[in-house]
Amino acid sequence: MTMNLQFAKRMERVQPSAIRELLRLGADPDIISFGGGYPDASLFPTEQLNAVYTEAISRNGRLSLQYSFSNGLPRLREQIAQRMGRDGVTCSPEEVLILQGSQQGLDLTAKLLIDQGDVIITENPTFLGALIAFNPCEPNYVTVRVDADGMDMDDLESKLHTAKRVKFLYTVPDFQNPTGVTMSADRRRRLIDLANRFDFIVLEDSPYREIRYQGSSLPTLKSLDTEGRVVFLGSFSKVLAPGMRLGWAVASEDLIQKLGLLKLAADTQCSTLNMTAASLFLDHYDIEAHIRSIRQAYLRKKELMFDTIRQTFPQDVRFTDPSGGLFTWLTFPEGFDSAKFMMEQSLPKAKVAYVPGATFFPHTHETNHARVNYSSQPDDKIVQGISALGQLLKDYLKA
Amino acid sequence: MTMNLQFAKRMERVQPSAIRELLRLGADPDIISFGGGYPDASLFPTEQLNAVYTEAISRNGRLSLQYSFSNGLPRLREQIAQRMGRDGVTCSPEEVLILQGSQQGLDLTAKLLIDQGDVIITENPTFLGALIAFNPCEPNYVTVRVDADGMDMDDLESKLHTAKRVKFLYTVPDFQNPTGVTMSADRRRRLIDLANRFDFIVLEDSPYREIRYQGSSLPTLKSLDTEGRVVFLGSFSKVLAPGMRLGWAVASEDLIQKLGLLKLAADTQCSTLNMTAASLFLDHYDIEAHIRSIRQAYLRKKELMFDTIRQTFPQDVRFTDPSGGLFTWLTFPEGFDSAKFMMEQSLPKAKVAYVPGATFFPHTHETNHARVNYSSQPDDKIVQGISALGQLLKDYLKA
Repeated sequence: MTMNLQFAKRMERVQPSAIRELLRLGADPDIISFGGGYPDASLFPTEQLNAVYTEAISRNGRLSLQYSFSNGLPRLREQIAQRMGRDGVTCSPEEVLILQGSQQGLDLTAKLLIDQGDVIITENPTFLGALIAFNPCEPNYVTVRVDADGMDMDDLESKLHTAKRVKFLYTVPDFQNPTGVTMSADRRRRLIDLANRFDFIVLEDSPYREIRYQGSSLPTLKSLDTEGRVVFLGSFSKVLAPGMRLGWAVASEDLIQKLGLLKLAADTQCSTLNMTAASLFLDHYDIEAHIRSIRQAYLRKKELMFDTIRQTFPQDVRFTDPSGGLFTWLTFPEGFDSAKFMMEQSLPKAKVAYVPGATFFPHTHETNHARVNYSSQPDDKIVQGISALGQLLKDYLKA
Repeated sequence: MTMNLQFAKRMERVQPSAIRELLRLGADPDIISFGGGYPDASLFPTEQLNAVYTEAISRNGRLSLQYSFSNGLPRLREQIAQRMGRDGVTCSPEEVLILQGSQQGLDLTAKLLIDQGDVIITENPTFLGALIAFNPCEPNYVTVRVDADGMDMDDLESKLHTAKRVKFLYTVPDFQNPTGVTMSADRRRRLIDLANRFDFIVLEDSPYREIRYQGSSLPTLKSLDTEGRVVFLGSFSKVLAPGMRLGWAVASEDLIQKLGLLKLAADTQCSTLNMTAASLFLDHYDIEAHIRSIRQAYLRKKELMFDTIRQTFPQDVRFTDPSGGLFTWLTFPEGFDSAKFMMEQSLPKAKVAYVPGATFFPHTHETNHARVNYSSQPDDKIVQGISALGQLLKDYLKA
C-alpha cells in the first residue's frame, strides 16, 4: 500500500512563512537584510555572558545542566517579578512563567483559549509571528484599525458590539510590530474598560518595551488590569541575547498554572543553563545600564537610517517615526507591490531585503507597505542599503 | 462584569501532571527520588562543556547569541545525520529537525497529524510525557499489550482490524519508558510491515537507545522504514545534559518541513548558543567514549539497585531487568495501590519517591506498578532508599 498521509485539518492554516525566509536571509552575509527583528549583535554583553556561563557550569554544573522546573527557575521568576514591579506591575514569582522566547507565550495562550472558530482580535496590521502561532488553533480574526496612537478604540468598540466568541485581543502596545506606533495612555485605559465590559482576555506582547529612546514609558496594560484579564509577555531577546531563547509571561496564578501545564507538555522546560545564566547576569551586572546603552545605539541607528531615507527616498514613500523598538513601517503609493519590488528589484539589484507588508494583514493583505528594521545592520550597511533602496524606488516609481 | 473565563475544550484533557510533581520532588534535596528520568549529574562532561560554551561565546558570540535557523544549526543537523548514519539510518541534514528536547517532537507530531477523535496507538503502559503532549490534540488511544519483547504484534494486528482513524503509533522500542523492555528484532520488522499495510505513521521515541550496557543494538524502526513512515526522535539529554534542552527528529523531508513550520510557530527556534555548544562538543570531543563511560556507570548502578532489591524486597514484588536505559518497572501483588503506598508510607516514613504506575496506562490505570529510576541517585542513596522501601513493603504486605 502506498502512503496516504492525512495531516490534521489545522495544517491547512500552517503555510510556509515569511519569517523562516527572513531567518535565512538574515544568515546570508551577502544580503543587507532589514527584514528580521534582529538586535545588534555588536551590543551583546559577551564578556559578562561568558563569565556567567562559566560560573553556571564550573561552579554548579550538576544543577545548571540538569532538568529543573517546568515553570522556570524560582530565582529567575523572582527576579522577573521584581523587575516587573519596578515597571508598575505588582506580581509574585508564582505569577511568572519562563518561556522559550515570548513567541512560546503566543502559542500557549492560543492553545489555552482558542477552539476552532473562536475570535482573536488583532491590530491591522499585526505581528506575523503571532498569526503563525495562533493559526494552528484555527481562530477567526477580527482586525482593528491602527493609527499613530495605536489601536483605534472606537473601531474596536463598534466591532465588539457585533463580534461573537471573542476569546482574546492581541496587541503590541509599545512600538508595535510591524508599524512601530505606541498605544496612547488614554487608549490603554479604554482598552481595559472594554475588556472588562465585553469579558475578554488581553494578550499584551511587549518585547520592545524597554527599548524606548524618546519620551517616557506609558503604563503597561497589565499594570492597569483590574480583573486579572491581562497576560503580559516580556523577552530577554532584545535586552540580552535572542540566542538564549528566554522570555516570560506574567498573568494571574490560575492562568500561569494552566499555561505552565501546556509548557510542560510542549517541551518540559526551558534550558536550565540559559535560565541560570540569565539569573546570574541579573545578580552580578547592571542590566538597566546595559539597556541604556542599547537605547542610545538604536536611537543613533534610527536617526542614521531616517536621515538616509529623507535624503534618498522618493517623497511619496511615507514612514512612521517610532519612539522605541526596532522597526519603521513604510507606506508606498497605492497599487505598489512591495513583495514584487523586493523580488524583482531590491534583492537582485542591490541585495537589500525587508519584510513585504502584506503578510501582516490577517485579511486584506495590503501590498503597499514594508517593515524595515534599523537595529541589526552596521552603520555602513544601513547607509549603503537604504541609499540603494531609495535609488531603486526613485527609478521604479518614476517609470 | 465579572470574568467568565472559558478555556479551550482541549484543556479538559490537560490535567495537573505527575511529571511536574516529580520535577519538584527531584529538586528537593531531602527526598530520595527514584521518580524522574534524570541522568546522573556527576557524569556530565562539565569541563568540556565549559570549554565549548566559552569558545561559542568568546570566539563568535555575535553569531552564537543571535537568532539563527528555525530548523536548527546546519552544522549540527549535519553532525546528527552522520551519527544517525553510523546507527544504520541513511539521512540528509534536511531530514533532521533540532528540537527543544525530544518532548517537543511529541507535541509537534501530534499537532501535525491529530484531529480531535483521531487514534494514536500506544504501548500499554506508555510514557506519561507522551500522553500529556498528545492530549491537547484530543486523540483517542488504542493500547497494545507489552511483554518482555516489547509491543505484542498479534494484539496490535487484531486491533488494527477494528480501529478506525489510526493516524500514528507511538512506541519507545529501546528500554521502554516506563517498563524498560526492548522490542525484539522480529517485532520491529513486523511493525513496519503492519504500518505499510494499514497505512499509519510510526513515532519512534528513542532517547535511551545509546545507553545500552548489555547485548547488541537492534535496528531502529527508522532504519527498517521502506516508505518514509517513521519519525525518529533522539535526544542529547541522556548522553550530554538535559539542561541544554536539545533533541532531534529524523523523518522524510516533507514531514520535517511541516514539523519545522510548527516548530517556528511554537518557539521560533532552539537556543543558538546551546546548539553551537553541542556542535562544538561533537567536533572537539569523543562523545562515543563519553557514552561508554555513562553505560558503565549505569550498569554498575543498576546492579547495585538490583542487588539491593533482591536482598530487601518481598518475594512477591516483581521487576523487569532492562539491558539499557534508566528504569525498572515494579509489579506488586494485585490490589496493591502504589500511589497510596507512596503518599502514606514511603514518602512520610522514608522520604522515598518513585512514579506510581497508574498514570502510564491511558485507560486502565492499573495501580499495582511503579516506575523506578536507577541512574540519578548516588550509590549510598540507592542502597539507603531501596532498602527502606523494601522494609516498608515487607511490613506492609505482611500486614
